[in-house]
Amino acid sequence: MAELGTLVLLRHGQSTWNAENLFTGWVDVPLSDQGEDEATRGGQLLAEAGLLPDVVHTSLLRRAISTANIALDGADRHWIDVRRSWRLNERHYGALQGKNKKEIADEFGEEQFMLWRRSYDTPPPEIERGSEFSQDADPRYQDIDGDLPLTECLKDVVVRLLPYWESAIVPDLRAGKNVLVAAHGNSLRALVKHLDGVSEADIAGLNIPTGIPLRYDLDAELKPTNPGGTYLDPETAEKAAAAVANQGR
Amino acid sequence: MAELGTLVLLRHGQSTWNAENLFTGWVDVPLSDQGEDEATRGGQLLAEAGLLPDVVHTSLLRRAISTANIALDGADRHWIDVRRSWRLNERHYGALQGKNKKEIADEFGEEQFMLWRRSYDTPPPEIERGSEFSQDADPRYQDIDGDLPLTECLKDVVVRLLPYWESAIVPDLRAGKNVLVAAHGNSLRALVKHLDGVSEADIAGLNIPTGIPLRYDLDAELKPTNPGGTYLDPETAEKAAAAVANQGR
Repeated sequence: MAELGTLVLLRHGQSTWNAENLFTGWVDVPLSDQGEDEATRGGQLLAEAGLLPDVVHTSLLRRAISTANIALDGADRHWIDVRRSWRLNERHYGALQGKNKKEIADEFGEEQFMLWRRSYDTPPPEIERGSEFSQDADPRYQDIDGDLPLTECLKDVVVRLLPYWESAIVPDLRAGKNVLVAAHGNSLRALVKHLDGVSEADIAGLNIPTGIPLRYDLDAELKPTNPGGTYLDPETAEKAAAAVANQGR
Repeated sequence: MAELGTLVLLRHGQSTWNAENLFTGWVDVPLSDQGEDEATRGGQLLAEAGLLPDVVHTSLLRRAISTANIALDGADRHWIDVRRSWRLNERHYGALQGKNKKEIADEFGEEQFMLWRRSYDTPPPEIERGSEFSQDADPRYQDIDGDLPLTECLKDVVVRLLPYWESAIVPDLRAGKNVLVAAHGNSLRALVKHLDGVSEADIAGLNIPTGIPLRYDLDAELKPTNPGGTYLDPETAEKAAAAVANQGR
């Protein structure tokens, strides 16, 4: 049996709403200038490591798509196959989408705030259909229709992510392709939870930094031979993960 | 039978080598700043016309890929499906790749120069394998191997383009999808020749301007109901086509 390709996870760089400390979820905001720089750096890290993707999987959100485009262009892999799915989208933040994180923490208290942000199975209140930051009318989600979420907890993300992992990403890996997954904090946490068998309790404390490729080497049973993965820039990754953990404080 | 989707052709904006008047062919140069602006404008024209692609087909060359990325981002269609093929690449310019157009015209004379640029079936001399501007070692062409051209005339481009048109683009159109093809002067001339049934003599005088979407409405037999297509900005297209015809003078 052929060796599996290498899996590389890349969380998008800073978006304009990250910069403004807003809950984003499925709202399709662009990268900030800093985010574009992070994506460029991500591409440099791939190139320096000689870790060259054969195919990229992205969410349907601009900040992940732009991150992939910029990083791949920098690594001279702009020409590879592209696959996209809403199943790689960020967690839907429900009624919190568009709201300031600090204001939500102040209004609802730190405990409720952390529950919505970090508990495994407590989704925020549903977003109102047709409201400013809902996606009812968005043409990119017309096909998924009945499955369109109005809010999600991390558990929901795991449930909608895994079918795509199994049906689209795994076949590419089994074909020996190096796969780049350009996605989001929570869709990548969901994938890491699955890959590393992280418990529901422990996943709350796991942060994935932006813009730093995270390599997973998988065996034939799709178990990581490097549990937890390997960041291409471990020093920066450590600092960045700590900073993410402090968001909203 | 469902109505066919709309076909939109988009020639990439100015590249750094267009700006320097060099034969480019399969050399993978980036867009110039002007080229990026043209791509942005192309996206605006798509959005203003409400002509929203459901899928994009690109060559494997950066200038077409970046044009598609920029235009689609501007039209809020960055999330659509992407397909790529070397069969959409620019004509391979053989030994002329990397050479200055004016110097070639001066060295070989206007007649030979125009023959290489515009005759239907006279390819330039083959590029030397392993030379600076050859693509022998390029990983993106390893799969096509025996078919890798060392030079091409427009007739060769028609021959290698049509299988992709039939097998990849037509099925998308028949599925009712609006299809954007982001490609090159000569691969798009080859496609237009086929669509409009342009003669070998007349295709020499046909120039496709950069950055201006060209819409084709096709009937069930894939014949244009608007022969020659419709530019989304006809005035600028006319001026630009005249300018292209004067290149190298």
